Amino acid sequence: MEISIVIYIIGLALAIEGVLMLVPIFCALIYGESIMPFIFTALICFALAILFSRKRPDSGFLFSREGYVATGLTWIALAFTGMLPFLFSGSTTSLADAVFETVSGFTTTGSSIFTAVEELPKSILMWRSFMHWIGGMGILVFMLAIVPFSGGTQMNIMKAESPGPSISKIVPKAQDSAKILYELYTIMTVAMIITLIVLRMPVFDAICITFGAAGTGGFSVLNTGCATYTIAQQVVITIGMIAFGVNFSFYYFISIKKLGLALSMEEVRWYIIIILVSIGLISVDLIYNGIYASGSIAVKDAAFHVGSIITTTGYATTDCNLWPNLSQGILILLMFIGACAGSTGGGIKVSRVLLMARAYKRELAIALHPNIVKKVHMDGKAADETVLRNTGVYIFIYFVIFAISVLIVSLDGFDWLTTFTSVAATYNNIGPGFGVVGTMGNFSSLSDLSKWVLSLDMLIGRLEIFPILLLFSKNTWRRF
Amino acid sequence: MEISIVIYIIGLALAIEGVLMLVPIFCALIYGESIMPFIFTALICFALAILFSRKRPDSGFLFSREGYVATGLTWIALAFTGMLPFLFSGSTTSLADAVFETVSGFTTTGSSIFTAVEELPKSILMWRSFMHWIGGMGILVFMLAIVPFSGGTQMNIMKAESPGPSISKIVPKAQDSAKILYELYTIMTVAMIITLIVLRMPVFDAICITFGAAGTGGFSVLNTGCATYTIAQQVVITIGMIAFGVNFSFYYFISIKKLGLALSMEEVRWYIIIILVSIGLISVDLIYNGIYASGSIAVKDAAFHVGSIITTTGYATTDCNLWPNLSQGILILLMFIGACAGSTGGGIKVSRVLLMARAYKRELAIALHPNIVKKVHMDGKAADETVLRNTGVYIFIYFVIFAISVLIVSLDGFDWLTTFTSVAATYNNIGPGFGVVGTMGNFSSLSDLSKWVLSLDMLIGRLEIFPILLLFSKNTWRRF
Repeated sequence: MEISIVIYIIGLALAIEGVLMLVPIFCALIYGESIMPFIFTALICFALAILFSRKRPDSGFLFSREGYVATGLTWIALAFTGMLPFLFSGSTTSLADAVFETVSGFTTTGSSIFTAVEELPKSILMWRSFMHWIGGMGILVFMLAIVPFSGGTQMNIMKAESPGPSISKIVPKAQDSAKILYELYTIMTVAMIITLIVLRMPVFDAICITFGAAGTGGFSVLNTGCATYTIAQQVVITIGMIAFGVNFSFYYFISIKKLGLALSMEEVRWYIIIILVSIGLISVDLIYNGIYASGSIAVKDAAFHVGSIITTTGYATTDCNLWPNLSQGILILLMFIGACAGSTGGGIKVSRVLLMARAYKRELAIALHPNIVKKVHMDGKAADETVLRNTGVYIFIYFVIFAISVLIVSLDGFDWLTTFTSVAATYNNIGPGFGVVGTMGNFSSLSDLSKWVLSLDMLIGRLEIFPILLLFSKNTWRRF
Repeated sequence: MEISIVIYIIGLALAIEGVLMLVPIFCALIYGESIMPFIFTALICFALAILFSRKRPDSGFLFSREGYVATGLTWIALAFTGMLPFLFSGSTTSLADAVFETVSGFTTTGSSIFTAVEELPKSILMWRSFMHWIGGMGILVFMLAIVPFSGGTQMNIMKAESPGPSISKIVPKAQDSAKILYELYTIMTVAMIITLIVLRMPVFDAICITFGAAGTGGFSVLNTGCATYTIAQQVVITIGMIAFGVNFSFYYFISIKKLGLALSMEEVRWYIIIILVSIGLISVDLIYNGIYASGSIAVKDAAFHVGSIITTTGYATTDCNLWPNLSQGILILLMFIGACAGSTGGGIKVSRVLLMARAYKRELAIALHPNIVKKVHMDGKAADETVLRNTGVYIFIYFVIFAISVLIVSLDGFDWLTTFTSVAATYNNIGPGFGVVGTMGNFSSLSDLSKWVLSLDMLIGRLEIFPILLLFSKNTWRRF
């Protein structure tokens, strides 16, 4: 383990976090709130950054192992510094709560331990939502976009932080990819903010809600979530969430005018199909069971929540605990499927589901004719067998971690729907589940043990298992 | 598709089923009950058998494809003929109920639609339990043991009907394997019956309960399940269930005095470890939460239910709905893990879990050092990459079928614990779940739609997905 470069990268990330405090500081100045919680946090970040990065690393190159470890440790470091504003501002006095809220922010989960967010300072709300935005595309990817590194370093960080079964490099050079990703991300974010403001949403809300939608986070700034926004605003949020759940290669292809390539992306096509089928089924279920008097409002709410859950955002306009079983079941299933690879969304990802579904078809063919030679295809190309193998194992270990987490949270003694969906909602970086942790509830009543476990689950889910689990393997820490 | 040999095999299996009617007929004669339901059923089986098997198949050889199709269709044919005694005896008038109960019998699930089994004729109870016994080791394996076939035929039937990630052939010739398996199975069954009779269990109960334990089925003959048996009898049932969940190669090695080989079987070792850890955790949870006044009774019940669930038997001595969350959660997890490959038990199987856990460790190693070359080992040998690939896909499609089933059953409007565990309990061939379908409940209040779906799930679970799903693939029915 080449620990010097790992420490160096953590230091850089902390320095960036210190600078990012400017956003809530700016907000606090506007609203006449105390800037001290953020100033202190920034100072601590800078102090640690100097301590960690003062020495240039022995080697400029970062291998696969160091890439994973640097990513895992950076995110943990961000959690324990990013939580300081919550403590300094007195928003909470519990360490477990502060860490939970911060991890929930950076991992774009959006599960909250606050029972009434409107009582919090605006600057704290802004920090919560801004964590979503930066965590969505990735703070290390952000670092890559602005700090020059050697080639291997970039690739191995990008691999560890970007979601999906294969590396989401849209151009050969990782640094260029990172720049393009953040450009597209910023353009889409600004467009959504402006649209919401045009539709007369308060500027503060428009910015925070967009940060949450862009990062597929889900922290809201009103106690009622998104229920009190106008229908037009809700429709824009719906479209926004779904748009940020699309593989960003799609937008890159459009930006370079390769529409054919964009439209031929099978993952995006299936993502849209799953969304439309889910909206259809839930709308019928809601109308058939008489939950809504108006059919169009039923479709609007169905679309909002399908978009919110499959992209793992977690905004809500209504209490889904009141929905019938089938609708709830579809939403729970969407929690696991998740958004596209290479987007800001979480979950297993449509591409993994697609790959495994095709691998299954191959196994069927082999069962019929054992000597057949067949490749699994994706976007017209044969999928790498290594990726297929890794995906199968990924889904297995994904469910193992899920099961262990459910068992630990079950100690809290909540009903099974609450227990099951509290893990599903955090692990998949969604936000609300059902029952006590439902769309109109929150995570405050869980035990500290559960909050720590779920915080870990959020990190494992966001970083897609390996960067966190590798930290617990003794082979990781060997000299070679 | 060489359909003639498929039809021929179905005919043979139906002929065997007709002969098997002698068991309930014998029971009916002893208890002075009507033998007509079984006589009629046997006549229908023979008539169909003559119709199907009168023509010798064009080719004596049965390829992989035909093996799967023959297995899938045979089991469906058994379900629709084996249910006739329930209808003829007037035990039920519902087709969905009769099919559900029969499929539950043959697949060794043990979920029942009967609310009070003590009101049923003894011969019907005997038929229910005998279905467990024959379905446990497999009716086609039984056929292989007594009817001579060509080599390829045997292998491909055995592959399709035996549970586990690889073929459970214990000696090179499949027919010899089938004979040895049924010999061991019979010896162990007789030993358990005698032990229970020595412990003063009524002979009828001893036979039926042993049939259920041997096949890991779980139909009981008392309304109270196994609660009213003595502690000594319950302990014997516990040991019996666990013994029949062991890979039968273990007993074969012992029978040929290769104790070293038996003890080196890693799957069996892990199976025992999982059982002991589960019993320990549940005992502590039960005692800590004051569910039992006596610690030893808590351990006894914990062991009984752990053994019952992991082997996918489903017998019960108490209402597990009253157990605390953690204990329930562990039992639900065990439902998915299941017993050993090559046993009569269901579920995902310990060997698949073990294979995937090791494949995961390999992926971790590869993440650290991408150029490493590493094999996954099992029982000291490198595991076949084809088996690993198939296992990953198997677990994926396993959960897909599970999710779709839960969505359909959710239409019934039961609470989520009932909905979720009704599928988990049938799909894994266990029997009771939690909530309405709990250990002291039954499946009678589910809708017909749910009963049909769960019947299909039981078949899919018992035959390990492919033989049933292949029936719905158009490639299966192509000429070549």
